[in-house]
Amino acid sequence: MIERLAIIGVGLIGGSLARALRRGKHVGEVVGFGRSLGNLQKAVDLKVIDRAAVSAADAAQGADMIVVAVPVGSMKDSFAQVAAGLADGAVVTDVGSVKGAVVDAAREVLGSRFAAFVPGHPIAGTEHSGVAASKADLFEKHRVILTPGSETDAAAVARVRAMWEAVGATVTLLPVEQHDAVLAACSHLPHMLAYALVDMLVRRDDHRLTFDLAAGGFRDFTRIAASDPVMWRDICLANATAITELLRDFRGNLDALTDAIARGDGDWLIKTFERAKHARDAYAKRRE
Amino acid sequence: MIERLAIIGVGLIGGSLARALRRGKHVGEVVGFGRSLGNLQKAVDLKVIDRAAVSAADAAQGADMIVVAVPVGSMKDSFAQVAAGLADGAVVTDVGSVKGAVVDAAREVLGSRFAAFVPGHPIAGTEHSGVAASKADLFEKHRVILTPGSETDAAAVARVRAMWEAVGATVTLLPVEQHDAVLAACSHLPHMLAYALVDMLVRRDDHRLTFDLAAGGFRDFTRIAASDPVMWRDICLANATAITELLRDFRGNLDALTDAIARGDGDWLIKTFERAKHARDAYAKRRE
Repeated sequence: MIERLAIIGVGLIGGSLARALRRGKHVGEVVGFGRSLGNLQKAVDLKVIDRAAVSAADAAQGADMIVVAVPVGSMKDSFAQVAAGLADGAVVTDVGSVKGAVVDAAREVLGSRFAAFVPGHPIAGTEHSGVAASKADLFEKHRVILTPGSETDAAAVARVRAMWEAVGATVTLLPVEQHDAVLAACSHLPHMLAYALVDMLVRRDDHRLTFDLAAGGFRDFTRIAASDPVMWRDICLANATAITELLRDFRGNLDALTDAIARGDGDWLIKTFERAKHARDAYAKRRE
Repeated sequence: MIERLAIIGVGLIGGSLARALRRGKHVGEVVGFGRSLGNLQKAVDLKVIDRAAVSAADAAQGADMIVVAVPVGSMKDSFAQVAAGLADGAVVTDVGSVKGAVVDAAREVLGSRFAAFVPGHPIAGTEHSGVAASKADLFEKHRVILTPGSETDAAAVARVRAMWEAVGATVTLLPVEQHDAVLAACSHLPHMLAYALVDMLVRRDDHRLTFDLAAGGFRDFTRIAASDPVMWRDICLANATAITELLRDFRGNLDALTDAIARGDGDWLIKTFERAKHARDAYAKRRE
């Protein structure tokens, strides 16, 4: 049970967590802060939060659990403000899609309270953003990765784990570096490909016809290109090394595929497509 | 009204068309042929077709409408067999995702009956294949592109158009070259990216964890990598010029994105992501 929860950044993720904890009666009071006053007012109107704070420091004051759910590039500022208002025994966690840069930021500004910081990442979301898109069941049967380090207080980890399990998530612990490498592959790289594809197609002379003739496969493939640009800019900058490395690997794979098509190598193509289909079918069998 | 419909290749598309026409009572008898006896037997058991023919020529015999729904690389053989059994006044159409190569094949083997061939492409499908995946409503509110040439008999075009409209599709006429260029962009290229991504990820040491930590965005993004490998090998070979050209364009875009991330150019990234999001949102507004 959380007595007072502070949500810094009441968007899709922060708002959904607040809704889920309230629905399950796992929280007493929810205080929210965010930069957009309109979004914050909506969060009050939708009863996602009990009240809006005037700053992250104000929101953190007296809270026993502080969840920072802002874009990765804004984490450091939020942590600095939270540190100013942090109560004894309070736990701080985040929901950023990159963990290395966030942990570095937290270490720098949380100072002596760094042990109370539990880096987290719920593997959930949609292409929509803002509190209006939040929903209480967003985390049910989804994974949350926590990446505590050797300095992290074990009791703080237990409290963050309990919070996520209370909203139906499965918690996995991973080293920071492994999190950032794996997420670069299964999330950051696909987002880059979707953005690059849509951006390329929209610049075609016949782009209207191109989109109009697209089928369901295209709709699904490009859905993630509607994701929040600020969030993704920040992810790119914060996980640049892993992402650029994978983009270069991918380019090599694409060159091999292009060459196979150019030389009419049907055997190469069918082997590659079959390997991919086999992997995708096995994944679907486990997940769908 | 079609008196006797011959479906050559009773898979997802051929089977769905037969189901839809039967459901709407737009067809008297449906005769099917396909290379897989198991699939053909299933088509009879599921009452998708009335009877199985022993060859494409046998299926075409006495049919007034022949729909060739085999992979693009098998079209020529099917057309040649169909030509042998073709009744006077019969119309032949196909459902291939590439039109240039299919039209060339038809011209070569249909000879004097080439005017009765109406090249077609229903923009519908799923990642599943075979008659078991077929469904009567697959084409409802979907587009079908026809690419008749100057030699094509106008009455034949009208009959094929009427068939597709009867099953709820909207028919669009396009020149062959434009079809192949636009489909390369909105369908063939995304399939290549999805196959290349999944094939790359499955070869990682930590591929099991990579797939396990993937979220809904990844699931949607990679769905098309489960598509039929033979069908896609044939599409690559038949539309190689357009596809390789687009793959090279895409590579250029990906290089620019990689460079922007490497040099930490947040402005470039946000502009690109916003342009893509804007286009994807506008598309979703029109389509979803």
